[in-house]
Amino acid sequence: MTEFDALGLLREIEDVGRDPRRGGYSRHVFDDAERELRDWFVERARRLGLKVTTDRNGNLWAWWGEPGPDAFVTGSHLDSVPGGGAHDGPLGVVSALAAVERLQASGFVPTRPFAVVVFAEEEGSRFGLACLGSRLLSGAITPARLESLTDASGRRFVDVAREASLPEPGYDAESLARIGLFVELHVEQGKGLIDLDAPVAVGSSILEHGRWRIDVRGQGNHAGTTEIADRRDPMLPAAEAVLATRRAAALRAGSRATIGRIEPVPGGTNVIASRVSAWMDVRADSEQDTRDIVADVQQAVSEAAAAEGCEASVIEESYSGEVRFDPQLRDRIAATLGNVPVLPTGAGHDAGVLAAHVPTAMLFVRNPSGISHAPEEGADDAAIQAGVDALVRTIEDLA
Amino acid sequence: MTEFDALGLLREIEDVGRDPRRGGYSRHVFDDAERELRDWFVERARRLGLKVTTDRNGNLWAWWGEPGPDAFVTGSHLDSVPGGGAHDGPLGVVSALAAVERLQASGFVPTRPFAVVVFAEEEGSRFGLACLGSRLLSGAITPARLESLTDASGRRFVDVAREASLPEPGYDAESLARIGLFVELHVEQGKGLIDLDAPVAVGSSILEHGRWRIDVRGQGNHAGTTEIADRRDPMLPAAEAVLATRRAAALRAGSRATIGRIEPVPGGTNVIASRVSAWMDVRADSEQDTRDIVADVQQAVSEAAAAEGCEASVIEESYSGEVRFDPQLRDRIAATLGNVPVLPTGAGHDAGVLAAHVPTAMLFVRNPSGISHAPEEGADDAAIQAGVDALVRTIEDLA
Repeated sequence: MTEFDALGLLREIEDVGRDPRRGGYSRHVFDDAERELRDWFVERARRLGLKVTTDRNGNLWAWWGEPGPDAFVTGSHLDSVPGGGAHDGPLGVVSALAAVERLQASGFVPTRPFAVVVFAEEEGSRFGLACLGSRLLSGAITPARLESLTDASGRRFVDVAREASLPEPGYDAESLARIGLFVELHVEQGKGLIDLDAPVAVGSSILEHGRWRIDVRGQGNHAGTTEIADRRDPMLPAAEAVLATRRAAALRAGSRATIGRIEPVPGGTNVIASRVSAWMDVRADSEQDTRDIVADVQQAVSEAAAAEGCEASVIEESYSGEVRFDPQLRDRIAATLGNVPVLPTGAGHDAGVLAAHVPTAMLFVRNPSGISHAPEEGADDAAIQAGVDALVRTIEDLA
Repeated sequence: MTEFDALGLLREIEDVGRDPRRGGYSRHVFDDAERELRDWFVERARRLGLKVTTDRNGNLWAWWGEPGPDAFVTGSHLDSVPGGGAHDGPLGVVSALAAVERLQASGFVPTRPFAVVVFAEEEGSRFGLACLGSRLLSGAITPARLESLTDASGRRFVDVAREASLPEPGYDAESLARIGLFVELHVEQGKGLIDLDAPVAVGSSILEHGRWRIDVRGQGNHAGTTEIADRRDPMLPAAEAVLATRRAAALRAGSRATIGRIEPVPGGTNVIASRVSAWMDVRADSEQDTRDIVADVQQAVSEAAAAEGCEASVIEESYSGEVRFDPQLRDRIAATLGNVPVLPTGAGHDAGVLAAHVPTAMLFVRNPSGISHAPEEGADDAAIQAGVDALVRTIEDLA
């Protein structure tokens, strides 16, 4: 084992951003933990002789040799969901560093520009928009939307970015133009590789995916003095939304719909809420299924709101159509790796955002629990080593 | 108008602890806003020549003359619910200061010890237990419960109290023994005085009242990759709890049951929650109704949890039986004030806690909106002046 062994690198950051309340890790863009991971990445990449730059959107680029066009790019992200696992994101970063070290030791020199990338705010846990770094880079966000992004405390992304010495976040044609192809290694977030008893797979597609915010407005009041008949309690339509979301998804095979975040305001025990926001995550095999799920929930919420004297709205916060990764690249990597399995995923990734612009591919690494976005997420040591092996061989073939 | 006019005093604190997100005020025990209000009260009371002390539980006592037994005590609290109104609590404190000033100006000297009190954490918004200051003082909390009180960030009450120079919170027999009777003036938290077209009422009783915490535990996971059939999502039983709470209250005339606070963990948009806590506030005309409501909700949650592969528990956090204020004191004050209306309330108060130990009474002041625990709470100027008049006459009669 070398000092850049992927397992050793994961151990180096295993205490950064632990979340004592939720379990697991909370590492959100530009918070203390995420900045500590950025510093750690810069130091680690420099030790490999890589030249590290930060782009206008806070994505980190570690170049092996000179930056240039048609680059082979690999990497992932270091941020997490609230209370997330240790591998979602970091595994792709540490595997890239470990692969570079092993290739350098073997005397390999890339024949094209080569970079390890760390994308910012992949989970969208702080500012609400997943894959923020890659979306900004690739021009997928309107300036108005960018201005409107705020965190839970009301701080605007553009202000937080300015404090992080990023005065002009936005479309970064120059960085995008350098990417010749992008390969993202990621822990699998389901059970595909367990069922197939294989350590590594190549990605085929990402389910289409959207997020909607459900807002219900009622009348805040005292929980003890307000008679039932006088109430306009937004919690009731919000609860109907949770149940309707499940019903709508269960009706449509292969679809998933979830409300995992709900915020009553003011949120006091002895207070009828004045308004409630709930966030609905929907993914399905077709846009029609997704639209039908949202329509079902919208109808249920509207009816419940009308019955309670509340007002409700359902607002699309993001929508991404199905992503099919470049078939040629997918087949070439699968063949190089000895016909490993090819698997789809329901999880969004920066690779999915970039797939609209450049050939992208993903490598999935087995997760013994099948669980992700939770402390129980895992990746077994053998699969992690197999993932680095696969990435090394992919680089040898394509870089 | 004097400088101690109640309206003027309310204006002095109208910018302290405003909550830009929720509207209204968030003033929670020992936070910056609440400490600013404490300092303001101390300064204001000293300007009246009152001698201010802080008891072992953080309640403030402003003595007119020497502290002593059989005291006439009036006052209320300065903390708020999250996003509460300007009057719930502070109106009773400023009215007491204004009454003292007017009595001093008229040459009145109390014939018994006299204090204005500010009770700590009446709303229970930070540590979850309403009327914490008066409950501690009167020995209504077990030491184990006291040790277990934590705020949302996990900080223990006993540690926060120690930092506030209160090393030994708990039963305060000495302070309790000084109270001869307690009169609490409070903004009305319902529509009784609007319906009666009267500015002031005397309180008769407080509905019995309890709080329960509903915990549902499932399996946190990725919202995009976890198929519906594989889910154990605690949000579903929690949503059923919200609906069951309403159904159970609607079945029982005069009862109120509310879930206004719900916290999924980790609370991410793209994450199936691993657990959800919801707090249920129940008040009814009889303990039987309350117990039946809780039992109905418990059954609904248990069934929903079993169907989803989750585990659920319903834990009593507090319970207080119906309070009937001292009938003699109530009738005497009503007569002194010229047979003003006598009204019950569904809201809990420190006066309700102290009623188990000493004669207590309440004065309610008209609230034009009928709304409380919300920014729309109000009290019209004429009613506020009438409230101070009523308190002055009560003091003249009883102190």
